[in-house]
This record gives sequence, structure tokens and C-alpha cells, in this order.
Amino acid sequence: MTHPSLTAPAPSALDAIRAVVGDRGVIGGDTSAYLTEWRGRWRGETPMIVAPASTREVAAVVRICAANGVAITPQGGNTGLVGGQIPFGNEILLSLKRMRRIRDLSPLNNTMTVDAGLTLAEAQAAAESADRLFPLSIGSEGSCQIGGVVSTNAGGVNVLRYGNTRELVLGLEAVTPDGEIWDGLRRLRKNNTGYDLKQLFIGGEGTLGIVTGAVLKLFPRPRETTTAFVGCASPADAVALLSHAQAATGGAATSFELIPRLGLDLVLKHIPGTRDPLDQPHPWCVLMEFSSGKAANLRAAAEAMLAEAYEKGLLRDAAIADSEAQAQMFWRIRHALSEALNGEGKGVRLDVSVATSDIPAFLEQADAAVARAAPGARVVAFGHVGDGNVHYDPIPADGAAKDALDDRREAIEAAVYDVVDAFGGSISAEHGVGRARRDDLARLRSPVEQAMMRAVKSALDPKGIMNPGKMLSP
Amino acid sequence: MTHPSLTAPAPSALDAIRAVVGDRGVIGGDTSAYLTEWRGRWRGETPMIVAPASTREVAAVVRICAANGVAITPQGGNTGLVGGQIPFGNEILLSLKRMRRIRDLSPLNNTMTVDAGLTLAEAQAAAESADRLFPLSIGSEGSCQIGGVVSTNAGGVNVLRYGNTRELVLGLEAVTPDGEIWDGLRRLRKNNTGYDLKQLFIGGEGTLGIVTGAVLKLFPRPRETTTAFVGCASPADAVALLSHAQAATGGAATSFELIPRLGLDLVLKHIPGTRDPLDQPHPWCVLMEFSSGKAANLRAAAEAMLAEAYEKGLLRDAAIADSEAQAQMFWRIRHALSEALNGEGKGVRLDVSVATSDIPAFLEQADAAVARAAPGARVVAFGHVGDGNVHYDPIPADGAAKDALDDRREAIEAAVYDVVDAFGGSISAEHGVGRARRDDLARLRSPVEQAMMRAVKSALDPKGIMNPGKMLSP
Repeated sequence: MTHPSLTAPAPSALDAIRAVVGDRGVIGGDTSAYLTEWRGRWRGETPMIVAPASTREVAAVVRICAANGVAITPQGGNTGLVGGQIPFGNEILLSLKRMRRIRDLSPLNNTMTVDAGLTLAEAQAAAESADRLFPLSIGSEGSCQIGGVVSTNAGGVNVLRYGNTRELVLGLEAVTPDGEIWDGLRRLRKNNTGYDLKQLFIGGEGTLGIVTGAVLKLFPRPRETTTAFVGCASPADAVALLSHAQAATGGAATSFELIPRLGLDLVLKHIPGTRDPLDQPHPWCVLMEFSSGKAANLRAAAEAMLAEAYEKGLLRDAAIADSEAQAQMFWRIRHALSEALNGEGKGVRLDVSVATSDIPAFLEQADAAVARAAPGARVVAFGHVGDGNVHYDPIPADGAAKDALDDRREAIEAAVYDVVDAFGGSISAEHGVGRARRDDLARLRSPVEQAMMRAVKSALDPKGIMNPGKMLSP
Repeated sequence: MTHPSLTAPAPSALDAIRAVVGDRGVIGGDTSAYLTEWRGRWRGETPMIVAPASTREVAAVVRICAANGVAITPQGGNTGLVGGQIPFGNEILLSLKRMRRIRDLSPLNNTMTVDAGLTLAEAQAAAESADRLFPLSIGSEGSCQIGGVVSTNAGGVNVLRYGNTRELVLGLEAVTPDGEIWDGLRRLRKNNTGYDLKQLFIGGEGTLGIVTGAVLKLFPRPRETTTAFVGCASPADAVALLSHAQAATGGAATSFELIPRLGLDLVLKHIPGTRDPLDQPHPWCVLMEFSSGKAANLRAAAEAMLAEAYEKGLLRDAAIADSEAQAQMFWRIRHALSEALNGEGKGVRLDVSVATSDIPAFLEQADAAVARAAPGARVVAFGHVGDGNVHYDPIPADGAAKDALDDRREAIEAAVYDVVDAFGGSISAEHGVGRARRDDLARLRSPVEQAMMRAVKSALDPKGIMNPGKMLSP
């Protein structure tokens, strides 16, 4: 199949698109905010950046593209981490930024129906204004958009309790690759009437159509939250601590984040105003948060649980936040990890998952594989251990050149991915495939699986115009 | 496309299948347990009933079928309600009953990997033996099988808290229509590496392949459970009560089942040993259950919540079970509803859902539609109102002939489905489509949606051999 993005769109097609969206719908001037990946890892190219104002306009644009063999890359807040939102050739870039309505908000039904261009933070705020919680929370929530969050099945820090985006979407509206509008905006908890088509668009990375709206699940707002910072001897103790904490609190843990000693030290070194919440240094730390939908004296429950865990030898020390400010200080350490690592040079950022119970063995084997692939490299493995999801980031040796790992990047990725594969894990737990992981996927996923994926892609996007070259190689 | 099940399999193909599974794998003698739908609504036909002993045998059988254009109907416990498990022509019937291993059970990872032929009750018991909960619970759990609950995305009485089967499956193993084994048995909470293919098999009703194994999510076992039986003035009060109960208990409600006066009266009339838990008759009742993963004095919380609801006028009377035996008596009323309705003649059994907040208005309009379509018919609307799911069952007028509604069945279904459609609801909330709802689906689902469904079906089952005539018309 020829790569649609390799053929430049006819000027007449671009004129027709402009006629649909009007001058306001065509973005000119400095386009770097759309074409440059936010970390500067990719710089895209496109013949046109179009921002339709409505689902109907999106459909009209797609119909023109389908008729003229013009490829399309949909884009939300341009916060993606795998290049899925960047056009690399002749794809037009279709931004949902002008579609930001809240179409419906029903506290009684615990649902909210929104346009794809609404930011995640705006969606969270709308839910809160109705005394409800939309629990999805990720670092980029201020600028990422619902359409992007849906198309990448975003995860974040509350998955342990509320699930990934997939579990938070009840209905979708999407424009198909032939420019039809699919109205799947159902506000239903139960609907067994045929294939659950929305599941293909959730995490579909814009390769099967363009998500234009979504029905989101809402929850009661937590009335009480308790945050603790804990020192552990090993990842094995941390995993056992999670099991203990869930049993003791009746599953009240909403976050359970692993932080290694080196990661904490680098935060203290590079991020002003941070300090270790614990008096003594411990080889591993865990940031855990508990929440309850009603007053439940969570702090006392957390204290009792931690004391018991200490008796069992699962932890060495623990601090419970005395104030919202202190809780935020704990979280600041967790959120500052990526930035702190940048201070040590160019690392390799991997986002993998295994069975939670396999995390200790996985870390051991992955560290050994990295030591072979890049002797001296340091590893900072952190993140959502409660979901079996580790952000596994090798960085240059202490004092080594910032770019010391550049020529080892591929060797490191291959080495770690082989360990992930041996554990039946995932090489992209929450970031997706996009351009960055596409070829790894082709190497690691079974032929049966790849054949099914290609069959679905060809069936729903026979002309191959939707985000070509992402997820699946052309 | 010609209907594969219209051409009889060549004897040579059947011989080849027998050679794969051996004599033990071919079921002869009295086959009514496989061919007769359990309520006697459908009686099937098949050239052969085959029960492979392993996934490899299933794959070998399917390869023979693919090569010879032989259609296949997969069957679990034969407890389905829409005829999806019944072969109606020349499809061979493939039973998973001999595949019943528990392949893996990890309390630390909270997952269980099982064969498709394991019964739901066996899966529940295995989880319990590891001090874990597998929360799916439906009336047929003693005989229905995991492969069947996955293929129909079964719901049940705990969806409010734990979700449908779709939310309880982390990984799948399936045999594709060309006889390949897809190993998607991942034990991961997070995996964003391409289309989530398992979602197509969940609720796919065996039309895209045969589910042979599944990784199921486990939860901490509830340590405390409280069951209440409540009298209400209206469905509107019941819906408001749900919202109040969830807010007051921090979302501790695991079940919230609506029971109308008429339904309760018919249970008392037809089911020996039942009695009204409340002293006075109320127009509507709600059976609610609360559970907690830890000791939480739930009964006191429930009492306080109900007292407050009484003050607000959301309920008229309430009884909290004093013992496990009394709780079971409450549940017996709920579970006996279907049987009690049978005592009143042949009714029309509908399984619909709308937004929870729309339930009161839906019931009003649906009752009016039934009154027009079948004057005098009585309606018993009950069930999982917490999920917006109502089992909506018109029955003959009091004292009318048992078959009084027979000639009105289609008119009633059409009338109610039009109301469901007007509310953006589902005409099959949890029972699926199968043969029974196939033509309604063709009438009510949008052309865009049907085109996408057919595209997926043709892409993954190009020869159309998987459960033909189910869900999609041939």
C-alpha cells in the first residue's frame, strides 16, 4: 500500500477544505506550537493546519480528504509522548481546539457529554462544579484535550481506583474515514447490542477516525483524602505493602507510586525547595494516597495500617501529610521526577507494565540487561506500581556526558523490551505507540495480532488516510 | 453473501473433525441439552456436536471448518437468553465444556487465568479459596461458562460497583475464524500497544472467533455486607434514593434493584414461603445491598442513610436484614420474579437500559405505549435500576388466557423499543442480540454503525463461518 502522506494534496482540495472551515478555521503564522513535539523530539510538516468549529465541519473536511486521497493527523493539546499527534509528510493537521462545549452534565446520571477539544482540566472543573469527580489525572491535564485522552487511552495517577480512560468513557461521537458522523454518544452503563465500536476509537490514536465528542463517567467527590510517604527496603516489600494496604483499608488506595532512592536524590539535587519527607534515606519510597467518598477517619485507618505494615517488616519509616500543603509537597517530588532526570543528561524514557506481582523480578532482570547494554548507565524506575506500570528510565553515568547514552539508546530499548516481553508485559503501558514505538510493536507483537490489527485498520480506513504511519507501519 | 449454514458440511469434513477430537470429543445420544434453548424457546439443528479438549484442538477444528466452508456455533452452558448459542441449520455446535482448567491464580496480582469452559460458580469459588472476590453474579452462574459470559458481556447484580464482564477481563485467548490461536492472555492493568482486540470478542457473541481462555480481575473479598428492603412512592424517588445512598455511604452500594408492587404481589402469590418484608404495601420497592472490604459498621451507616432519606421523603418504610437468612429472603423475592411472572401466562421479556436519570420518564412513556399496543396488559418493570437497566415485562391481563399476548408480542416490542430509542437507550442492556434481537437491531441502529459492524465482521471472518445469522443478519 502506498503511503497516502507521500502524495501532496492538490491545491484544489486544500481550497475546498478552506471553504468549509473559513479563514478562522485555517491556522497560519507561527505554527511551531502545532508542529513541534513539546519536548522538541519531533518536528512535523504539513500542507495545512485546519481547526473545524463543529463535528459537521470535521465530517465535511474528512469527506474532502477521502475524495482526494489527502491524509489527516488529528491533534488535541499536542502533549503526546510518542509522536502520534505530529504530521510527518503531507498529512493535513486537524486540530480539535475550537470544539470545547460541554454538551450535557447530569449529576443524577453521573455523566458528562463534552466536545473533544475541551481540556482535561476544564472537564475536571466542570465535574467539580456539579459536586462530582472526573478522576482522570495526568501531568498534562492543563493542556491535553478529551479527544486526545480518549484516542490514547490515557492513564495517570488514579488508575488504581478508577481505571484508565477506557473505563471512564460511556459513549463516543466520531467522524469515520469516509466522513460520516457516528453518533455513539450513549449515556448508558449497559448496552449489549453488537460490537462495542467505541473501544476501537479509544486508544486508536486517530488511525480509525476522529473522536469529536465523548460521554464521560462521573463519580461522587472524595470527602476525605490522606497522603503518606513511606520508606521501603525493596520493590518486593512495596508490592506486598500495596496488597496489605488494600486489604486493611478496604481498597481505599487511589494512588500508589514507587520512587527509587536515586530518583528522590535527583529531585532534591535539581528541584529547588524540595526535601526528603523522611529523616533517614531508604532504598525505595512509596507515595500513597487514600480517599473516601464520605467522612471515614481515613488518617487513623492509614496510621493503623502503616503501623501494622511496620510490624510485618514491609516498611522502614512513614510520614503522613499533616496538611494539604504537605501532601502537595509529597506529590511535588513525584511529579518533579521527569524534570529532575533531565538535569542528568539525555536518558531513555520507557513506559512499561508487567503483572504487579512480577515487578520485583522484572526490575532485577531489566537492570541487568541495561548494565550489559550500557555499562555504567544509571536506572531510575518509578511510577504507578499499583497498576504494574513502571516508568523505566536509564540515564547517563554520574558525571558522564549529557549525551553519553545516545549511541546506546536502541540497544537499551531492545534489551529492556525483551525482558518486558519475557514477562508477558507491555512496552507501552500508557503512552501509546504513535511513531516512537511503531517498529518495536511490529517486532514484538504476534503475527496473529498484527494481522487482526491490520484487518481492522483496512476495514475501517480502506484508503489509509487516517494518521498514516502511526501505530502500524504503512 | 450466501449463508454458510445453508450448505451442509461434507461428510469428509466431519470425519476430519472427529479425527481431531476423537470419539470422546463428539457428543451423541440425547443432544437436547445442547440443542434446546433452556426455556424451550428455540430448538436447534446441527450435523455434529463437538467438544474439543484443548485450545489446540479448537484451532484444528476451526481450520478444518474454514477450509471446508463449515459454519460453527460456539456454546457455553446453553443459558443464553437470545438464542445466540443455538445452531439453526448446518453449523456444527462447538461446546467448550471439556475445557475447565484454572491455569493461574495470583492473589498478589489479583488475577485468575481460566479456560473458557469453567463455570462462573467454579470461577467464583476459586477466587474465594484465595481470599479474593470475582464479583460477576448472574442467575445462571451455576451452569453458565466463562467463555459465554465473556462472549455476551454478562452483567448481573454487582455491575453498580464492579462493572460488566467487559470491565472484569484483562486478557483473552481466542481462536480466530481461520483457526489461528490468538494469545492475548495478558495479566496487565495497562497496555496501550495498539487496538484493544479483546474488546471485539467481549460481547462478540462468537461471531468473530471462539473465546478459549480469559484473564479475570479479582478484588478483595467484602468483609461486611448489609441488605435493606425499602418501600418507595415512585421510580423517581428510587432514583433519587440511589444518589442519596451513594453520597451518604461513599459509594458502598453494590446492588440497587427495583421491584414494583405487582411483581412483589405475584412473587407472594406464586412462590411458596415468601412474604413481604414490609408491613404495609408500597407502590415500589428497592432491594439494596452495601458491602465493604473492611469492617466499617455498614449497618449503622445504612440505618443513618435510610433515616435521612425518610426525612427527605425519598422512602416510606425500610427493613434491614438482621441475619444472613433474612438477607437471602430479600434476595429470594428479587430472584423469584421471573418465575412468578411465568405463573401469569406467557409474557414479553424485554431487557432495556436508559440513562438512570431517565428511568421514571421512560417507564411512564413505555407503559403508555404498551397500553396502546396491548390494552389491558399488565407491566412488571424491575431490575438493575442502579445501572439504568430495567427488565421490562408485559404480561397478560389478570384472568386473561395464558397466551393472550401472543399475537401482540411484536407490536409490544416495537412500541417499547421506539420509546427506548427516543431516550437514546439500549434494546438489549445485558442479554445481547443473538437471534432474538437481530432484526430489531437492523431497524434501530444507525446505518453508519451497522456499516462499521459489518466491516469488522467481514474483516475478521471473511468466510462468514462464525455463528452465522447471529447479531448481524446474513
